Amino acid sequence: NAEGRQGQLSADLDILWLLFGAYLVFFMQCGFALLEAGSVRAKNTKNILLKNILDTALGSLVWWAWGYPFAYGENGKYPNEFIGGTNFFMSNSDDVSPRENEVDFNNANKYFALWLFSWAFATTATTIVSGAVAERCQFRAYVIYTIVLTGLVYPVVVHWAWSAEGWLSPFRVDENGEPDVFLSHTVGFIDFAGSGVVHMTGGGAALMAATVLEARYGRFSAEGKPIGLPGQSVALATLGVFILWFGWYGFNPVSTAAFYNSMYVASKCAVTTTLAASAGCATVLTMHIFLEGAPDITPALNGILAGLVSITAGCSVVEPYASVVIGMIGGVVYKASSASLLKLRIDDPLDASPVHFFCGMWGVFAVGLFATPANLHNSYGVDRLKSRSEAGVLYGGDGRQLGAQTLGILAIGVWSISISLIMFLVLRYFGILRVPQDQEITGLDVSQHSGGPRFQVEDDKDGVKMVL
Amino acid sequence: NAEGRQGQLSADLDILWLLFGAYLVFFMQCGFALLEAGSVRAKNTKNILLKNILDTALGSLVWWAWGYPFAYGENGKYPNEFIGGTNFFMSNSDDVSPRENEVDFNNANKYFALWLFSWAFATTATTIVSGAVAERCQFRAYVIYTIVLTGLVYPVVVHWAWSAEGWLSPFRVDENGEPDVFLSHTVGFIDFAGSGVVHMTGGGAALMAATVLEARYGRFSAEGKPIGLPGQSVALATLGVFILWFGWYGFNPVSTAAFYNSMYVASKCAVTTTLAASAGCATVLTMHIFLEGAPDITPALNGILAGLVSITAGCSVVEPYASVVIGMIGGVVYKASSASLLKLRIDDPLDASPVHFFCGMWGVFAVGLFATPANLHNSYGVDRLKSRSEAGVLYGGDGRQLGAQTLGILAIGVWSISISLIMFLVLRYFGILRVPQDQEITGLDVSQHSGGPRFQVEDDKDGVKMVL
Amino acid sequence: NAEGRQGQLSADLDILWLLFGAYLVFFMQCGFALLEAGSVRAKNTKNILLKNILDTALGSLVWWAWGYPFAYGENGKYPNEFIGGTNFFMSNSDDVSPRENEVDFNNANKYFALWLFSWAFATTATTIVSGAVAERCQFRAYVIYTIVLTGLVYPVVVHWAWSAEGWLSPFRVDENGEPDVFLSHTVGFIDFAGSGVVHMTGGGAALMAATVLEARYGRFSAEGKPIGLPGQSVALATLGVFILWFGWYGFNPVSTAAFYNSMYVASKCAVTTTLAASAGCATVLTMHIFLEGAPDITPALNGILAGLVSITAGCSVVEPYASVVIGMIGGVVYKASSASLLKLRIDDPLDASPVHFFCGMWGVFAVGLFATPANLHNSYGVDRLKSRSEAGVLYGGDGRQLGAQTLGILAIGVWSISISLIMFLVLRYFGILRVPQDQEITGLDVSQHSGGPRFQVEDDKDGVKMVL
Repeated sequence: NAEGRQGQLSADLDILWLLFGAYLVFFMQCGFALLEAGSVRAKNTKNILLKNILDTALGSLVWWAWGYPFAYGENGKYPNEFIGGTNFFMSNSDDVSPRENEVDFNNANKYFALWLFSWAFATTATTIVSGAVAERCQFRAYVIYTIVLTGLVYPVVVHWAWSAEGWLSPFRVDENGEPDVFLSHTVGFIDFAGSGVVHMTGGGAALMAATVLEARYGRFSAEGKPIGLPGQSVALATLGVFILWFGWYGFNPVSTAAFYNSMYVASKCAVTTTLAASAGCATVLTMHIFLEGAPDITPALNGILAGLVSITAGCSVVEPYASVVIGMIGGVVYKASSASLLKLRIDDPLDASPVHFFCGMWGVFAVGLFATPANLHNSYGVDRLKSRSEAGVLYGGDGRQLGAQTLGILAIGVWSISISLIMFLVLRYFGILRVPQDQEITGLDVSQHSGGPRFQVEDDKDGVKMVL
Repeated sequence: NAEGRQGQLSADLDILWLLFGAYLVFFMQCGFALLEAGSVRAKNTKNILLKNILDTALGSLVWWAWGYPFAYGENGKYPNEFIGGTNFFMSNSDDVSPRENEVDFNNANKYFALWLFSWAFATTATTIVSGAVAERCQFRAYVIYTIVLTGLVYPVVVHWAWSAEGWLSPFRVDENGEPDVFLSHTVGFIDFAGSGVVHMTGGGAALMAATVLEARYGRFSAEGKPIGLPGQSVALATLGVFILWFGWYGFNPVSTAAFYNSMYVASKCAVTTTLAASAGCATVLTMHIFLEGAPDITPALNGILAGLVSITAGCSVVEPYASVVIGMIGGVVYKASSASLLKLRIDDPLDASPVHFFCGMWGVFAVGLFATPANLHNSYGVDRLKSRSEAGVLYGGDGRQLGAQTLGILAIGVWSISISLIMFLVLRYFGILRVPQDQEITGLDVSQHSGGPRFQVEDDKDGVKMVL
Repeated sequence: NAEGRQGQLSADLDILWLLFGAYLVFFMQCGFALLEAGSVRAKNTKNILLKNILDTALGSLVWWAWGYPFAYGENGKYPNEFIGGTNFFMSNSDDVSPRENEVDFNNANKYFALWLFSWAFATTATTIVSGAVAERCQFRAYVIYTIVLTGLVYPVVVHWAWSAEGWLSPFRVDENGEPDVFLSHTVGFIDFAGSGVVHMTGGGAALMAATVLEARYGRFSAEGKPIGLPGQSVALATLGVFILWFGWYGFNPVSTAAFYNSMYVASKCAVTTTLAASAGCATVLTMHIFLEGAPDITPALNGILAGLVSITAGCSVVEPYASVVIGMIGGVVYKASSASLLKLRIDDPLDASPVHFFCGMWGVFAVGLFATPANLHNSYGVDRLKSRSEAGVLYGGDGRQLGAQTLGILAIGVWSISISLIMFLVLRYFGILRVPQDQEITGLDVSQHSGGPRFQVEDDKDGVKMVL
């Protein structure tokens, strides 16, 4: 019948939308890989690319085995607010087959599409760290932390914030299926596409990794002044950032996770994403020109990423002008945190933690300032909004939503930083975290991966020489 | 009810289609950036990439502030045939929120999706110029002309040809909502995806830029013979063209701008786009082999672009065989115009004006020859076609449509060339157009952007040397 | 009416889905081009890129002229089991125009969308060979075999296995429109997205090409030991593989070729594709570490491709865990066949035949082991499955389906290998297959394409030198 056909169409479209988003977000893996390969020295090219490939491949298997179950495996009658725990290894794959449902309307179970979309997000969170450990981390340490991040740190945060059972989640329901968020008169913790869940989690681990690993050889002078170690190819880095921007159009708009009646919100997300990226780029570039006297490309690229990360939490709940403001402030946050890390002699080669951790924090916080009632209504549902107090403080909110955002920031920050810190300290204790200094100077491609690229340029204390 | 749900689905699909197209067209920015980075010498890599990033970022902010309003901001009761003028800075973003409309059917306002799709087109038009000014243009000149192009030259052309009020537009209606095109017994000016509106506009500005800037140092011998200045990487250039071709599948088919009942036309556009690109490639490559004695890659790449630009105006209104013919002739137009520019000692490093301006002209003109009644009917609406006279002259048209196309070519050409010429002359007059010759020879990366790439190969009069 | 609108929406969505898939698969051309450009030596960059562009462009024209007609041009009353034969040069393009059908429901003929989707597949099959002939094949030989492959070898296999008339096809119907597969109690030959049809066909031709062309200069020592000829850029190669993986999400899931009621199957395909790629990568990388003592990037990349090719036939009919197993065994098949070719002194520079031919065989065969009744039901239709005997032998099948798969492997293998062998022998006989040895040593860019890249690194017997 017409009703049934319509339901089927709608369900098929949900899957199409999720697949579309998953593909775009998967492609971001390629963007990260190229951005990182372009930003390191030629002697570490194979190494950084191999690590990026590995966290995709290994991450898939972990996400299949127990990552997704920890994140979204609902416990049903005995819900667990902290961690999920069903359907390991897709053990439910038979149950979701349409064969089991005779009604046409249900002939499009979304399980596999949701798995794929969440998988692409999980690999993003993990790959953020690869920038921070570039040029000096052992391969086996990389394998271990990839498994811990994709299999424990990240899925737990997802369970908290995005599942139907997590303690922070706006989608949490009580026994009767009624909304049951932890702080009354809020929508719950709002992080539409993951400034906190994905970027703070990955960025927090990146910050700990860079701190525990310590700086690359030659990165700081004896007096602590940073010395530039320019990457091998701005073209690869630029290509990487363009691909990331492109992929972000899956990351943010497709986080509606549903198609019917959701595309207006998705299109708004695409617009706010575009404006924030542009504003971030313009801001960081302008600051750089004023501070350094000449335009350069790396600040422009990082400004784009700062804007993108900053708008990710609030892309669906703020107005276009606000996305410009959020992107601009995101650019300032990036610049300030990047400079502070250098002051502290923390060497994060790709600025992964300034971009993802600090801008991620700002993005989550900004929701508590700029969220408007109408946008909350559109993107978080008709019946949820009880009063104007739930909006951002600039739109009549009483600050409770800002409080919920702050609590989320603290929870995610403490969790990702503490587990990561312990993990990297343990790896260091056992001597499997950092490569020996001679291998680092030679380059990881030659020392660890059966030979380097065809030619490479090498800085050492005596000056510049070319190694063929 | 079923009717309402169906309308909502249909509206959601319109938005999905527009987002899909916008993302693909946005990705073309990456294609242009890489094509240009691969085609210039290594010493100008950062410079050309930075410019490409900047016109995307700056263009977004301008398009948000007043570009889109000039193009599509309808004046309502007092329509303006020349320029739009409402909704600056998305001041209407509240009005388009679904909250305002209680009827489900309208729960998917297309405003943001249309904005995004048109934004991606606007940045394309601007970025075309960056190829023509490569390797010798000052950064501040670039900033100024990006703002003028995205904020004035291009949106005015869009208003003329694609808005509901513009004097050239086939979508122009009178007070009663009846079609009201400027030349009776035509469909109006037909430029389906923008051979004229986008490519001629950008290409005309590129031609003026290259002319006023004058040739790069060393491009012509004292006798006026062109000297090759080969680019640094054919791999990057090829990647760029593949991405452009890929993005064109958003550019052309998604220009239906609607989903329901439009996908047959979209699929035809995809086929004609494919065939024209292939025919253009084969033609230019064959001509090159005959003229130069050996196959080479740059002609193949430019042949693809020539075919793509040529079919952009008529992709929806011609038959497949005609797209092959249009692509072939487009290849010849490219070859001839490229050779003519060299005769005139005009140095357009990326051949931006042969590809975009001259092939764009041919593409618009070809519609007046090859448009068929059935295709016009399918892609420009059922009730519009009054008689066979509106078709291309090869399909029984009486030449009026060809006349409309010619008028459009003249109008767009005169507008884009005259404004651009004035602008570049003014920039030159104030000495902010071209970099000093010593900086050009050193390379813009070192002289203007805090250092060059990791290694570079440098031509000078004494031969080739490597600079580390 | 509502029914009509729904039918139209559904038909429009079929087209959207096919276009989406076609674009992604087209983008794989770019992936192949970059993988190959990164894997050859710098002196052959232009050559390999030009060949990749050419097989796309030339392939399009051939597919338009007679390739698609041979594959899918149904003969109607007098069906031909071996080859199609109607609608050359899209001579039917008028008939498929909606104008001809007054009923709204039919207002979205899928002809052009199906053509485009099949075109992207055809160019993939052809481009596989370009890796095997890298660095030593003449340009005219390339042109000839591209035409033969796209115009004869590949379309015939498609007609056999995927058309409504082919002798192997599961979609074959008798005069009354009833299913009529060649082996009763089977679904027919199952090759969902083309492990056999595309990858074995292209890979078989690649194997013959590499064999008849013989090894590159310097590839084997006098004693027959392989000598590494490392490619110029692992970054380009990695980018290429990421693009291929991305494009595979069009290749496999969109092979449903229909939207309504098909997206559950599509999402399952996306998941199995992801898991098999990851398992292939992990397997080959692990084997490499055990055999060679250190992780390296090329094995990881080829492991991904091995997994992807292996799952292509069965992506819709196996369970997720099985896709992990299929990917792992695919990795072993790749490693073993690659080593065997080297033993036989067959020089396939990109390992095109191990990846595409041998893993393609395994992928087709694996369907006969792992296909489950429920998945067959979902992806090959409700009324087709007569009994459990049609499933894989691990799911209660009686081996007939495994027999059908084996017959398909034999038929495709014999056809593609024999025609290719004859063709390459004829080309060699007339002396137009391989370039002269001095040109090969100099590099094809300088000797055949008007000059090389800006700088290149050259191995010769005396060691390594840089040529500017």
